[in-house]
Amino acid sequence: MYFASDNAGPALPEVMAALADCNRDYAPAYGADALMDEVRAELRRLFEAPEAAVYLVATGTAANALALASLARPFDTIFCTPVAHIHQDECNAPEFFTGGAKLTLVPGGDKMTPERLRAAIAAEETRGVHGPQRGPVSLTQVTECGTVYSLEELAALSAVARDFGLPVHMDGARFANALVALDCSPAEMTWKSGIDALSFGGTKNGCLGVEAVIFFDPARAREFELRRKRGAHLFSKHRYLSAQMAAYLRDGLWLDAARRANAAGARLAEGLRAADAGLAYPVQANMVFAALPRATHHRLIQAGAQYHLWEGALEGSDPDERLTARLVCDWSARAAETDRFLALLG
Amino acid sequence: MYFASDNAGPALPEVMAALADCNRDYAPAYGADALMDEVRAELRRLFEAPEAAVYLVATGTAANALALASLARPFDTIFCTPVAHIHQDECNAPEFFTGGAKLTLVPGGDKMTPERLRAAIAAEETRGVHGPQRGPVSLTQVTECGTVYSLEELAALSAVARDFGLPVHMDGARFANALVALDCSPAEMTWKSGIDALSFGGTKNGCLGVEAVIFFDPARAREFELRRKRGAHLFSKHRYLSAQMAAYLRDGLWLDAARRANAAGARLAEGLRAADAGLAYPVQANMVFAALPRATHHRLIQAGAQYHLWEGALEGSDPDERLTARLVCDWSARAAETDRFLALLG
Amino acid sequence: MYFASDNAGPALPEVMAALADCNRDYAPAYGADALMDEVRAELRRLFEAPEAAVYLVATGTAANALALASLARPFDTIFCTPVAHIHQDECNAPEFFTGGAKLTLVPGGDKMTPERLRAAIAAEETRGVHGPQRGPVSLTQVTECGTVYSLEELAALSAVARDFGLPVHMDGARFANALVALDCSPAEMTWKSGIDALSFGGTKNGCLGVEAVIFFDPARAREFELRRKRGAHLFSKHRYLSAQMAAYLRDGLWLDAARRANAAGARLAEGLRAADAGLAYPVQANMVFAALPRATHHRLIQAGAQYHLWEGALEGSDPDERLTARLVCDWSARAAETDRFLALLG
Amino acid sequence: MYFASDNAGPALPEVMAALADCNRDYAPAYGADALMDEVRAELRRLFEAPEAAVYLVATGTAANALALASLARPFDTIFCTPVAHIHQDECNAPEFFTGGAKLTLVPGGDKMTPERLRAAIAAEETRGVHGPQRGPVSLTQVTECGTVYSLEELAALSAVARDFGLPVHMDGARFANALVALDCSPAEMTWKSGIDALSFGGTKNGCLGVEAVIFFDPARAREFELRRKRGAHLFSKHRYLSAQMAAYLRDGLWLDAARRANAAGARLAEGLRAADAGLAYPVQANMVFAALPRATHHRLIQAGAQYHLWEGALEGSDPDERLTARLVCDWSARAAETDRFLALLG
Repeated sequence: MYFASDNAGPALPEVMAALADCNRDYAPAYGADALMDEVRAELRRLFEAPEAAVYLVATGTAANALALASLARPFDTIFCTPVAHIHQDECNAPEFFTGGAKLTLVPGGDKMTPERLRAAIAAEETRGVHGPQRGPVSLTQVTECGTVYSLEELAALSAVARDFGLPVHMDGARFANALVALDCSPAEMTWKSGIDALSFGGTKNGCLGVEAVIFFDPARAREFELRRKRGAHLFSKHRYLSAQMAAYLRDGLWLDAARRANAAGARLAEGLRAADAGLAYPVQANMVFAALPRATHHRLIQAGAQYHLWEGALEGSDPDERLTARLVCDWSARAAETDRFLALLG
Repeated sequence: MYFASDNAGPALPEVMAALADCNRDYAPAYGADALMDEVRAELRRLFEAPEAAVYLVATGTAANALALASLARPFDTIFCTPVAHIHQDECNAPEFFTGGAKLTLVPGGDKMTPERLRAAIAAEETRGVHGPQRGPVSLTQVTECGTVYSLEELAALSAVARDFGLPVHMDGARFANALVALDCSPAEMTWKSGIDALSFGGTKNGCLGVEAVIFFDPARAREFELRRKRGAHLFSKHRYLSAQMAAYLRDGLWLDAARRANAAGARLAEGLRAADAGLAYPVQANMVFAALPRATHHRLIQAGAQYHLWEGALEGSDPDERLTARLVCDWSARAAETDRFLALLG
Repeated sequence: MYFASDNAGPALPEVMAALADCNRDYAPAYGADALMDEVRAELRRLFEAPEAAVYLVATGTAANALALASLARPFDTIFCTPVAHIHQDECNAPEFFTGGAKLTLVPGGDKMTPERLRAAIAAEETRGVHGPQRGPVSLTQVTECGTVYSLEELAALSAVARDFGLPVHMDGARFANALVALDCSPAEMTWKSGIDALSFGGTKNGCLGVEAVIFFDPARAREFELRRKRGAHLFSKHRYLSAQMAAYLRDGLWLDAARRANAAGARLAEGLRAADAGLAYPVQANMVFAALPRATHHRLIQAGAQYHLWEGALEGSDPDERLTARLVCDWSARAAETDRFLALLG
Repeated sequence: MYFASDNAGPALPEVMAALADCNRDYAPAYGADALMDEVRAELRRLFEAPEAAVYLVATGTAANALALASLARPFDTIFCTPVAHIHQDECNAPEFFTGGAKLTLVPGGDKMTPERLRAAIAAEETRGVHGPQRGPVSLTQVTECGTVYSLEELAALSAVARDFGLPVHMDGARFANALVALDCSPAEMTWKSGIDALSFGGTKNGCLGVEAVIFFDPARAREFELRRKRGAHLFSKHRYLSAQMAAYLRDGLWLDAARRANAAGARLAEGLRAADAGLAYPVQANMVFAALPRATHHRLIQAGAQYHLWEGALEGSDPDERLTARLVCDWSARAAETDRFLALLG
C-alpha cells in the first residue's frame, strides 16, 4: 500500500535490460555515445520537431532549473503557481541556477488561469529597472495536484506569455501521464500549444533517473550545454542515461507505463469516491487527493499504508476532522494493494 | 586500443548485478533507502571514521564542487595546482557552487610542494578585505598527471594548511588507484594525513555514475545536504546510487578493479619505455604520459587507437616532433589490446 | 509641488557644510577615517549599544541586501510583506547578494501581523531539504505605505521570529520619520523590540547618499565587511560618507529633518481629508496615499504637481474613477507648495 | 609626506563647488537628472562617440565588476595580468557580479604582451564544454605598476582579442593620468585602439566618489542598467554623482589634475633616481616603485612618511636589504612635501 510518490517504485524491466545490454566495451563519454543519437532522433520524431535540441540529465530538478536558467536572466522573475514544484520542492534551485531570478506566484490553486497570469505579468511592468523584469512562464503538466491542463488551456496560457514576448517552460515530470490522459500527440501538448522548452520526465514513470530537456527553438539551447556542465550535470558515462531513455521510448513503453499508473489512480479514486472520501481535485492522471477523517488515517497508517498528508496534521484530537492525503500511483502499482487500501476505509 | 579515459569503459558486472537486484518493490526516496545505510556504515568502517558524514552524488564534478562549497566562503580562494580538474575541467563549477570563490593556482606541475603552497597562502594575507580570503586547499589523488602523493607528502601539505587554519579537500576521482599504489589504508591516506573532506570516486573505476562525499568532521557537512538538493544532485530513486556503491565496496571489488587498472597502466608504461618513448611523469597508477613522434601518433590513430594529446598538436610538418599522449587504462583494459598498441610503436 | 519621493530633494545645509569641512588633506581610506570613529561612537551611544557593529554604504538597497546576506543562507527564504521594498523595488538585489535566497510574501497589506507571520514561517517546515529553509524576517519601518509599527507590534513580530530562532532585519530607510512618530528611543524601536540588524537610512532624510548598517549582535557582522567589499560598496574616500552621517546625527539634525517631513505629511493629509479624498492608509509619517478622481489627477498634473500613482492608470475614460496617489514629503517640503496643491483639489 | 594612495586625498575645489551648486530644489532621481544629460553629452563629445552608453557609479570596483559582468558569461574566463586590480584587490567582486566567471592570469608583470595573451587565450580552446569559455580581456591603464600602455601596445593587444572574437575592457581608474602621459585623445586611447568598454575613473583624480562606465557599442550595455540596479549601485540622489563628473570634465579640470599628479610623480622619481634608489618600473604617470634599504624605510616612516610596501617586509635584520615601496602622488601633492621626503633619503 505504497502511495507516497511515483519516485519510489522500481524501474521498468525493459529499462533495466537496456542498461545491462549497453554495458559492453568502451563508449564515447559526455553524450557522444551512439545511444544518445538514437534518443535525440527518437524524441525529435515523436515531437515532430526535427530541429529540437535534446539533452539528458539525471534529476527533475536539474531539468527544470537548467531549462529555466537558459530562459531567464538573473534580474527576471519566473511566473508559476503557488504549488509549483520549482517553488516548493527544489530548495531554491531555480534561484541558484538562474543566478538569482525571482519566482512570482500567480494566485490560485493547481492551475494558472490566463486572466490571473495576465494580471501577474502586467503587474510587473510598472517599476522600470527597480522591479524584477518579466521572465518565463513555467507550467507543470500533470500539475502538482494531479490535474491536467487541456490543450485549450495550454494554448490560452502560452498566448498570454506570447503577448508579452515571454517564453514558456513546461515541467513535464509526469509528461507521459498527462499525454495519455489527453490522448493527444506530444507535439500538440508542447510546441503546438506554445511551449518553448520542456522538462520531459522519465524517472517517475519507470526509469532509474533520467529526464530529457527539449528546446523546440534550438537557439534557446545555446547556453544549455555550458550550464549543464557547470552545474555538474553532464555525465561522463552518459550511455547509462541514454540507454534508459532509449528503452523508455521504445515501442511505446513510456505510454504503457503511464496508462498503468493512471489506471491505478482511477481505480483508487473510484474506490475513494464510493467510500465518500472528498476528492480535492479532479483525478485526471495518477494522483489522488482525498479528504479522510483523522481516524481513518490512523487506521490506514497502522495497517502499513504509506502516503503524505497534503493538508492538516495527523496529531489532533478530533477523530472526524478531515485531512487531505496525497496518494500517488506509479506504473508498478498493484490492484490488490489498492483494493486492500480501499477495504480499510470502512 | 582505447586509452582516452577511464570514464568510458563498462561498469563492473557485480555493480550491474546489484542494480538489477535492488530493482524490486518500493524503496524510500532521497537517500532514506536501506542500501544507503549499508553504504554509510561500510565507508565509516573502511575509513575507521565512525562519525564521518557520507553522501552520494552521481558525478565527480558534483562531488568536488559541493564539497568545496561546504568548505569555502564566496570571498575565499581555493588553492590547487594549475592542472587541477577543478580548475581545468569543470567549466567554473567550483566558482558556481561556492557563489564566486576564486581558485589560486599554486605554481608547479602535477603536485604541490609544501614550500610553494605555503608561499601561495602567505601571499594572500597582505590585502585585508581587498583581496580574496584564504580558503581550502584541494589536492588530487591520483593527480591529473598519473602520479601519487606519498603519505609523507600529504601530511606535509596538510600541515601547511593547518598552520593557516585551512581545511583540506581531496579530489579522489581515482582514490582506489592511489590506495592500491600506496598499499596503505583509507584512513592513512585521508584523515590520518590531514584530509578533512574527500570526493571518493566510483565512476572511473567501474561504476555507472556514483561518487561519495565524505566529511571526516561531520560539522563541516552541516550545509552539504541543502547544497546538494539546491544543486539538483539529490536523487529521488537514490537506491540506484546506493546499490552501485554498495556493490563497489563489497568484498574488496573496488580494490581489485583498481589493481587491474594499475597493472594495465604498468604494462603499457613498460612497453613504452622499451620502445624508447619518453615518459613525462612517473607511472604510479593507471595513467601514462608518453612523448611519441608525430609519425607514430598518426600510425596509432590510423590503426584505431584512441587517446588524447596532452601537449602538442597532431597537425604539423615535422614527423619526428614529440607530442605527449595521455593514455588511461580502466579496470576492463585487456592485455591483448595493450600489446597490439605497443606493437604499433615500431 | 513635488511629492514623487523623498529621494529627490536637496541635502541638508549642515550635511553639505560637513562635506566641505572634511575636504582637507589626506585621510585614511576604506573606513579608517577619524570621522567614521565619530559616527560609530555616536550611533552606539544613540542606540545604547556599545558593542554594535556599524558600517556605512551609499544606497538603501545596498544596506538591505548586504544586511540580509549576512543573515540569510542561500537556501533560506526571507519573510517580508508583498509591498516590501526588498521585494518590489530592488531588482532582485536580495536574491543576488544572498546567492539565491527566496523571499516569502506574508499575505496582507502594509504590515505583517504576528498570526500571518507565524503561519507563513510554520508553512515552510514541512518539506525537509526540499523546500527553502526558514530565514530572517524583514520589516520596513516606516512601512512602504506610510504607516508605522508600534513598539508592541514590533515586539510581537520579533517574538514570533524568536520562537523559530530566526533573526529580524529592519529596513529603516525612513527610520527617523518612524522614530519621531512614535516618540521613542532608537533602542526601543530596535534591539529592545527584538531587531537584530538595521538599515538606518540617511539619504531620504537629507543626506546625499549614505546609510548605516547596524548589527546589534556583532557576531552577526562577521561576514559583512567582506560582503561589502565584494559587493563593491566599500568606498575608498570613505570620509565623504562619514562626514554626511556625522553631520546628520549631530545636534539632533536627523530628528528635526524628520519632524519637518512628517509635519508636511500631516498638513497634506489634513487638507486631503478636508477635500474628501479617501486616504488609503493612516498617515503616520511623511507619506500620504490619497484616492482622487481621475479628473483631479489631470488637473494636478497639468498644474505641475509631481507624484506617482500607487493604484490605477491615468489613462481611462471615467473622470470620476478614483486612482490612488502616493504623495511623499521630504524635510525640504514647503507649506506654500502644499497649500497650492491642496487648492487645486477643488 | 603622504604617498599611500591617490584615493586618500581631498576632492578638487571645483568638484566640491559643483556639489554645493546643485543642491537646490528637487531633481529627478536615479539618473534622470539634467546634470546627467550634460555628463553623457560631454563624455560622448570627448570620446568622439555619439552613440556610446554612459553610466555613473560610485566606486571603481563597481565600474569594473559591472562592466565585466556585461561582457562575460558565468562560464567564461576573463584574461588579465597577475597584478590586475580586478584580481588582487576586489575581493572576488568580478566573480560575484559575473555569476562565477574565472580570471585567467596572463603571465608577466605589469603589462600583457600580445604573444602571452594569444598563448593564454589559445590554451583555453582545447577542452570543449569542460573548460571555461574564452571571455573578455581586461587591461589596466595606467597599469597597477605605474606604467602606461602605448597606443601601439593597446592596438596589438586588442587585435589579439579581436582575432578570437573577444571584447576588451579597460580599467581606467587612472585614465586621465595615462591620457596626459600619452598626450593623445580619449578616442585614440580607447575605441580607436580596440577598447569596447571603459571604467573611466574620477575618484582617484579629485572627485569624492564617481566613476563612469562607457560602452562604445551601446548594444553591449543592454544589461548594464539592470545589473547596476540589482547590484545596488544605482543612486537615488544621482545628481550628486552627476555634479562631480560634470565639474571634473569642465574646462579640462580632469586633465589639469592628472598633470599635477604626474608632475609630482616625476619630481619624486627624479629625486629617488638621484639618491640611487632602484626604480622597479619606468615612471610614466603618478606612481613610483622604489627599492630602498630597510634602514631608509625605517627613517622615512619614523619621520611620518606614509606609503605601502610592494615587496618585502619591514621586519628583518638586514638594514641594507632593499624593499620596494609603492609611492603614489595625487593631484594635491605638494612639492615641499616631496622634497622633505627626498631629503630624508640621505
